[in-house]
Amino acid sequence: MTLFDRVREIALVNSTGSILSWDQETYLPSGSADYRSAQLSYLAAHAHKLATSDDFLKALAEAEQTDDGSDPVRAANLRELRRESDRSVKLPTELVALESTAQSAGHHAWIAARKASDFSIFAPHLEKLVSIALEKSDLWGFAEEPYDALLEGFERGTSTAAIAVLFDALRKDLAPLSAAAVAQSAPLELPPEPYPVEIQQTFNALVAAEIGFDFHTGRIDTTAHPFCTTLGPRDVRLTTRYMESDFTSSLFGVMHEVGHGMYEQGLPDADYGLPSGSAVSLGIHESQSRLWENQVGRSPEFWEKFYPIAQGHFHQLKDFPLEKFLRHIHRTAFSPIRVEADEATYDLHIVLRFRIERMLLNREITIAQVPETWNDLFRESFGFVPPDDARGCLQDIHWSMGGIGYFPTYTLGNINAAQLFQAATTIPKISAATAKADYAPLLAWLRENIHRHGGTLDPTALMKQATGKPPSTEDYLQHLRSRYL
Amino acid sequence: MTLFDRVREIALVNSTGSILSWDQETYLPSGSADYRSAQLSYLAAHAHKLATSDDFLKALAEAEQTDDGSDPVRAANLRELRRESDRSVKLPTELVALESTAQSAGHHAWIAARKASDFSIFAPHLEKLVSIALEKSDLWGFAEEPYDALLEGFERGTSTAAIAVLFDALRKDLAPLSAAAVAQSAPLELPPEPYPVEIQQTFNALVAAEIGFDFHTGRIDTTAHPFCTTLGPRDVRLTTRYMESDFTSSLFGVMHEVGHGMYEQGLPDADYGLPSGSAVSLGIHESQSRLWENQVGRSPEFWEKFYPIAQGHFHQLKDFPLEKFLRHIHRTAFSPIRVEADEATYDLHIVLRFRIERMLLNREITIAQVPETWNDLFRESFGFVPPDDARGCLQDIHWSMGGIGYFPTYTLGNINAAQLFQAATTIPKISAATAKADYAPLLAWLRENIHRHGGTLDPTALMKQATGKPPSTEDYLQHLRSRYL
Repeated sequence: MTLFDRVREIALVNSTGSILSWDQETYLPSGSADYRSAQLSYLAAHAHKLATSDDFLKALAEAEQTDDGSDPVRAANLRELRRESDRSVKLPTELVALESTAQSAGHHAWIAARKASDFSIFAPHLEKLVSIALEKSDLWGFAEEPYDALLEGFERGTSTAAIAVLFDALRKDLAPLSAAAVAQSAPLELPPEPYPVEIQQTFNALVAAEIGFDFHTGRIDTTAHPFCTTLGPRDVRLTTRYMESDFTSSLFGVMHEVGHGMYEQGLPDADYGLPSGSAVSLGIHESQSRLWENQVGRSPEFWEKFYPIAQGHFHQLKDFPLEKFLRHIHRTAFSPIRVEADEATYDLHIVLRFRIERMLLNREITIAQVPETWNDLFRESFGFVPPDDARGCLQDIHWSMGGIGYFPTYTLGNINAAQLFQAATTIPKISAATAKADYAPLLAWLRENIHRHGGTLDPTALMKQATGKPPSTEDYLQHLRSRYL
Repeated sequence: MTLFDRVREIALVNSTGSILSWDQETYLPSGSADYRSAQLSYLAAHAHKLATSDDFLKALAEAEQTDDGSDPVRAANLRELRRESDRSVKLPTELVALESTAQSAGHHAWIAARKASDFSIFAPHLEKLVSIALEKSDLWGFAEEPYDALLEGFERGTSTAAIAVLFDALRKDLAPLSAAAVAQSAPLELPPEPYPVEIQQTFNALVAAEIGFDFHTGRIDTTAHPFCTTLGPRDVRLTTRYMESDFTSSLFGVMHEVGHGMYEQGLPDADYGLPSGSAVSLGIHESQSRLWENQVGRSPEFWEKFYPIAQGHFHQLKDFPLEKFLRHIHRTAFSPIRVEADEATYDLHIVLRFRIERMLLNREITIAQVPETWNDLFRESFGFVPPDDARGCLQDIHWSMGGIGYFPTYTLGNINAAQLFQAATTIPKISAATAKADYAPLLAWLRENIHRHGGTLDPTALMKQATGKPPSTEDYLQHLRSRYL
């Protein structure tokens, strides 16, 4: 069995697990959770066994020795497989098991802590999870600080220092920008509900298909927490949730997930499971979702075309003019809650989390200092303090799942989205088309410049090749300024 | 790893495959079929490898040697695992692969043959499939005739000769009974559509819950071909399909699948994957579906309670009295098509198929003689000849999938259903409850007498223990006579 056949086998096992997880979130009867966990654990252990077997490691070493470098895609695949393999092999099985247990316990404790708004319930678990993260960093190794090694798992080829420079620059400009946007915001409510779920589904599917999501190889279901998952080379599943009082909630959710989904649909089918057939990083993945959700979906050009169609679906919009509708979707406000934050204020939440994670990993603050530090940094950016820890440092699931180092990719996604949209629409044919809400040329450009490359280039190199510069904040700030000020 | 842990591992892998198959039938995007097949093949091969490994066979032999017979359930499990293992091990891998290929080709040829109503397209494939069936029979061994060995795979512990005696007796009485029922039938159409799908779903779920289906560990979805599948010890999935012109089509479909589903829900959870936690045979499985569909669902007592509720759901029934509705659901007619046949005529279709399969396996007729034999036997039972082979010997999928020996279990199911219902309702408490459409005592009796035994007893012994006699036709014929004459 060749190395690539082995990699494909592991991908097949993992994709089987994804099917089980998707079903778990969408359709699993409530009394069936325990056995589903057992099925998922079995598949994960089976995949891990395959990926760390002597046979696999031998096949990888042999492929490296016999590769003559003449095929750059093959060379990139070998390089990335080596990187992933080294990371897997460096973690002892006991630590992986310990982390899994700590995450499970941490998740339960976090739910209880958030419910009671009592950080002390979660604190010992967070201490454990940070210790494990530090141990992993040591095992993996890092150039400058432990956070580098964690970041590498979500956004390879970047560094904590580079992110800090980018985010500091962003924060400097975003703080006054968002304050001005919030001050200027003149929010308007939509005409009263109901916006029936079935009609939302019809309208969302129409928009999804129109901007390029392929329902022949994908579908949309309903879950409490929206996500996008890939169950095979031509099987992309999105989910959303519905508010009867505002159809734009599910629509922007769908456009976000469609962005993720079209990236997956644009990866080379034939390389499914190999790095060259896989998404490169979370920051690039999020650039695709944010591009379609915000750059496209919240633009006046998009609504010039789609608002009359929305009015045909939701009759109460008939006498509600486009100008008022745009004020509704461009409303901004300071919220203590990240997932309720709008485009103009969102990244302040992310930068705050990044700063705290970095301090924690550098042991510059203790676990006990997290709530106080959170509130101090929050006041610094937003001018007020969250009413309690449930709406402060306990609001997010990520740390409880061991996802330290994940948050920065949200803001990288926003930055990348603006930069990609700007680069694409510099091309006259694309800007002429997007001005008429025809997005086929834009999608073709993304397919060509992002999707088809899979994971063969590091994110920074990919952005540089696509836009002529590494990720930087100017296009994003310019976008926010022109939309919100 | 103990033998039983190994058996549970195989069940876990197989249940994972069931999840993938369920998704394939319900929600898989149309363009995703190929990779799903690859995922299913991988899991099937993995399970087969585990079940035929030296480690497994050694563990089985050791368990047999050390078993002191003091635990009858353990002894039954060892006996059945040995039976299954011997059957698996006796088939060489090449033959299994050959059969899989022949089934795949046969299935495609059957679709084309049925479409063109041209048996010659399917004939060479059927020849191949019958040859393979005979080869398997030889490898497995049989007492009297090759069909015995095939039957054993669907209904263990019975024989072709015993089925022939049972079916000959049934046919003798059923032929005049069904002719008289058809002559007396005074069919009435329901008031006009629509019977909206969403309201059918609400009503079906209400009935399913009322008769005892546990939605906490099960659900109902929509597919072209209804089925019931089990994805774990507490995860039973049913499907149905809807006709807007007649809500009883989906309802009786749901009651049928609920019968299968409640059997699965009544098996001992803790023994999931072991014979003692598995359904014993198709003939017993079908007895559960037919009992709830026909003995219960088509009874006047059931509708005394549920017809007013149906009238509340479907307003056009308001002025359509119960008496007319019962005439509608008790209509009978001779159809050339098995799946369209009603209760009074269904088994004539099955007996015909059993006779032809037996002749084929005994090489008493050639493949080329199948259409002519079919039409001759059909005329003998129904008094007319099907208009063409598409509505004759090409109508069923079973042979094309290698399912020779499966058909008899449908009629065994009908016979067993009547016999179990009769035995249960001999108990005054149960008959008093069913007379008021309260089915909790009936379900409790089935749980106690059928479900909880899993596969520890052979079907005939199980029926004898539950009803005092082996499967015999009298209760079934008595039921048909009293309902249709």
